[in-house]
Amino acid sequence: MTPGDTLVEEGAACRLPVLRCRDGRVGRGEDWVAEEMPVALAFNGISHAVMLATPADLEDFALGFALAEGLLDGPSQCYGIEVEPGPQGLTLQLRVAAAAEARLKARRRTLAGRTGCGLCGLDSLEALACRPAGPTPPPVAIAPAAVARAMRELAALQPLNRATGAVHAAAWCARDGAVRLLREDVGRHNALDKLIGALARPPRGEPSFDAATGFVAVTSRASVEMVQKALVLGAPLLAAVSAPTALAVRRADEGGLSLVGFARGDDLVAYTHPGRLGLAPAADAPA
Amino acid sequence: MTPGDTLVEEGAACRLPVLRCRDGRVGRGEDWVAEEMPVALAFNGISHAVMLATPADLEDFALGFALAEGLLDGPSQCYGIEVEPGPQGLTLQLRVAAAAEARLKARRRTLAGRTGCGLCGLDSLEALACRPAGPTPPPVAIAPAAVARAMRELAALQPLNRATGAVHAAAWCARDGAVRLLREDVGRHNALDKLIGALARPPRGEPSFDAATGFVAVTSRASVEMVQKALVLGAPLLAAVSAPTALAVRRADEGGLSLVGFARGDDLVAYTHPGRLGLAPAADAPA
Repeated sequence: MTPGDTLVEEGAACRLPVLRCRDGRVGRGEDWVAEEMPVALAFNGISHAVMLATPADLEDFALGFALAEGLLDGPSQCYGIEVEPGPQGLTLQLRVAAAAEARLKARRRTLAGRTGCGLCGLDSLEALACRPAGPTPPPVAIAPAAVARAMRELAALQPLNRATGAVHAAAWCARDGAVRLLREDVGRHNALDKLIGALARPPRGEPSFDAATGFVAVTSRASVEMVQKALVLGAPLLAAVSAPTALAVRRADEGGLSLVGFARGDDLVAYTHPGRLGLAPAADAPA
Repeated sequence: MTPGDTLVEEGAACRLPVLRCRDGRVGRGEDWVAEEMPVALAFNGISHAVMLATPADLEDFALGFALAEGLLDGPSQCYGIEVEPGPQGLTLQLRVAAAAEARLKARRRTLAGRTGCGLCGLDSLEALACRPAGPTPPPVAIAPAAVARAMRELAALQPLNRATGAVHAAAWCARDGAVRLLREDVGRHNALDKLIGALARPPRGEPSFDAATGFVAVTSRASVEMVQKALVLGAPLLAAVSAPTALAVRRADEGGLSLVGFARGDDLVAYTHPGRLGLAPAADAPA
């Protein structure tokens, strides 16, 4: 596999080993996975915000963010942009006009640390390092057929998305793939937060479920924040309809979570801890 | 049209009038559109964060967010949740244990106002009301065929997405639909910020474009933040592959932006200011 062509900026994606189930066969392979990285913006040395972003075209990002958010009146107020690598991520240092700096300072206000995506809202990369780690999920076995069943059931259980085509869903599924609880939201992180809330305090008259005995299925991609939330929930496996990011794969690997992507029909790609899926690749079978 | 079935929670979606191009025919119709609303979280009366979310299952959201972000040790630390409507959005008031409140206060730190999605990072709904408005975009004509061309070209111009399947793209297109500039990112808001930055300061040796003479095409849904960024850019039209939210439609309507969703093949749905598209629906033709 190659990343398609040479236009992929270096550092924007990486190759990771995977197990792939396709057309009923299991094989080892490699997958190109998009990088996702904490990127901090600082204006004249003052930290402003941290976001998760793809580390490519970062000067465009810094300038475009500053313009889109009204922090600069125009590109001429930006005198220069430097990209500084650091142990927790990248910092984009913008040198800006005094008028823009004064406006930024006036906008600064006291805020709490965590917000929707769990990252934007932090004001520096240092604040990231102290995020709480969840316990290692249990070694429960979940068959690929259960993931396929969950994905089939998901499609039929999203009333808001069926009406509008605009929203994501997160579901908790029993070990056999039966969807037991599902929540929808325009934001994929919000949908997962709603699921976590509903599992923690089931609606009156509804059964309660132990998240560790099943798995989480989402209709979206898997970002590092989705992995983090699944770990907080104590679920052993997260299955996503679309691709994971490289940072999500690393966090899932560290945390002991089985991360499954491209779960479509009976196919799937296992990025981490494939043991729970009981996959036995044919010897030397390419995926 | 109905929202599929009666399981859609009241207030989670609404019907909006649209013009629909399908199979070469133009018709008036109505579309079910997901609501998106600023939702503030407050703990024991102290504002914590504002997010854009679907106004459904809000108690699950409040509790799940607090657990996922490690603000509570468990659901028993939450004594109650009230949903307070307000002029700018909803506030979720959580009553939490003294231990959790102390931890929240320790986490509070000085942060800047705006972050990746432009909203999370604000600490109260009041802070939202003072967002800058862009100028009204010009009355340039953009044919539906130009939107279709842009979407066709987009698909071939995303090297990172072709390699990884994980990222979004935002492109600026000339009036005839030719893609002139494209940026990719794992975050759809980031991709649009990168595009805005690249338009503001073209790469050395590259031509510069006047954003007001063409339009923006994105591979994602259209949230209110995407509309806001397109307005800041001064583009007259935003075309999205997927659905808009109701708040995005309202903001586009106010701001004078033509908002197009479900731009797939030669089909599209025009949600606001269809005049620029020159669409002439057949009299009384249902869409």
